[in-house]
Amino acid sequence: MTAPAFDMPIGEAMRTQRAIRRLTTDPVSDELVRELIALATKAPTAQNHQAWEFIVVRDPEVKAKLARLNRRVWRLVDKPVAWLNRKDPKFVRTHRATAHQADNFEDIPVLIVCCMTATRRAPSPVVAASSYGSIFPAVQNLLLAARAVGLGANLTTMPLTINFAARRALGIPWKVTPVCIVPLGWPTGKYGPTTRRPVGEITSIDRYGNRAWLDAEGG
Amino acid sequence: MTAPAFDMPIGEAMRTQRAIRRLTTDPVSDELVRELIALATKAPTAQNHQAWEFIVVRDPEVKAKLARLNRRVWRLVDKPVAWLNRKDPKFVRTHRATAHQADNFEDIPVLIVCCMTATRRAPSPVVAASSYGSIFPAVQNLLLAARAVGLGANLTTMPLTINFAARRALGIPWKVTPVCIVPLGWPTGKYGPTTRRPVGEITSIDRYGNRAWLDAEGG
Repeated sequence: MTAPAFDMPIGEAMRTQRAIRRLTTDPVSDELVRELIALATKAPTAQNHQAWEFIVVRDPEVKAKLARLNRRVWRLVDKPVAWLNRKDPKFVRTHRATAHQADNFEDIPVLIVCCMTATRRAPSPVVAASSYGSIFPAVQNLLLAARAVGLGANLTTMPLTINFAARRALGIPWKVTPVCIVPLGWPTGKYGPTTRRPVGEITSIDRYGNRAWLDAEGG
Repeated sequence: MTAPAFDMPIGEAMRTQRAIRRLTTDPVSDELVRELIALATKAPTAQNHQAWEFIVVRDPEVKAKLARLNRRVWRLVDKPVAWLNRKDPKFVRTHRATAHQADNFEDIPVLIVCCMTATRRAPSPVVAASSYGSIFPAVQNLLLAARAVGLGANLTTMPLTINFAARRALGIPWKVTPVCIVPLGWPTGKYGPTTRRPVGEITSIDRYGNRAWLDAEGG
């Protein structure tokens, strides 16, 4: 077994990570998927509970079911969301890629369904933060590791919106909560640096609203 | 400005990331904190909303207030949690480190409070996943970037448990939701590889419960 080295500098991986929704149908090996999940599980969890499970979906039948659910939700949100953001060219590009993914969902080589296994009875915002804070760091590791080996990936919750049907398609028992899906495949396009709001705009010093770093940026 | 390179191989950063709760009082520069937040914001968000804010806390008065809140919660959970896990030596080590952090919370050089700015009115599990899935990938980038430059860090929600008081200490308005805190400083100890449950045990193939990969591990 020759595992990939995952030797891309971490700064480069983070700075060039982006959602890739146009994928080829070239196969993605089990070995690689395994390595990605192994790195995902290196992420922290509350009290190191590691209360997660992953479902690796390649079966055309299961993928077709999730593709149908995904399209049902997409049809509901597609038009209104497109209209609301019609003047944002960046959004329009993303929207087109999301439409492409919806149209071709069954052709995605691998879907990784990320689940939480700890059920909490009294959800409060702090408990929710602790639960979701014990799965999304792992998902981010998965996405970064995928980027580091040049795989296309993105994070979507859309196919899980019709939750009961999605659970049935995947045979997920009630004690397990599917949280999101990471579609994986080799990209047709390229990765490249992303842009974000300046740090000074979204950072306060000591107390909320003290934008001391905004001036330092000449803002 | 000579920014750190963040050139640690991504696999190494992930494999050696761990919660570091014993910190020196040596200063952590604004420049470095800024870089960490810049990398945090490279993480994905739902529809690229970037609905986050960060509060960088160094003010001894604000830190002291959060330290008191943290200890109030710690005193409630300390004994019962320790008793429940008394036979797990790994847990005992973590527990001691958490106690150390609680005792010395005001001496942590920098606290980064990570917040969501999008308020959603009707929280369902899928909406919650989309909200928390738009902040915790950023938090994980922050933790990995800290690890890559040798800073000690961990993810904690404990000081935010008494939510109203924590909000008041930080001056956070109701439209903003503090999600977690990342304490940052130079470690007194060392980073090293972590261990996790084998991938085959937590991975299903195509449908939940099909442990086809378990055999491949000779399990």
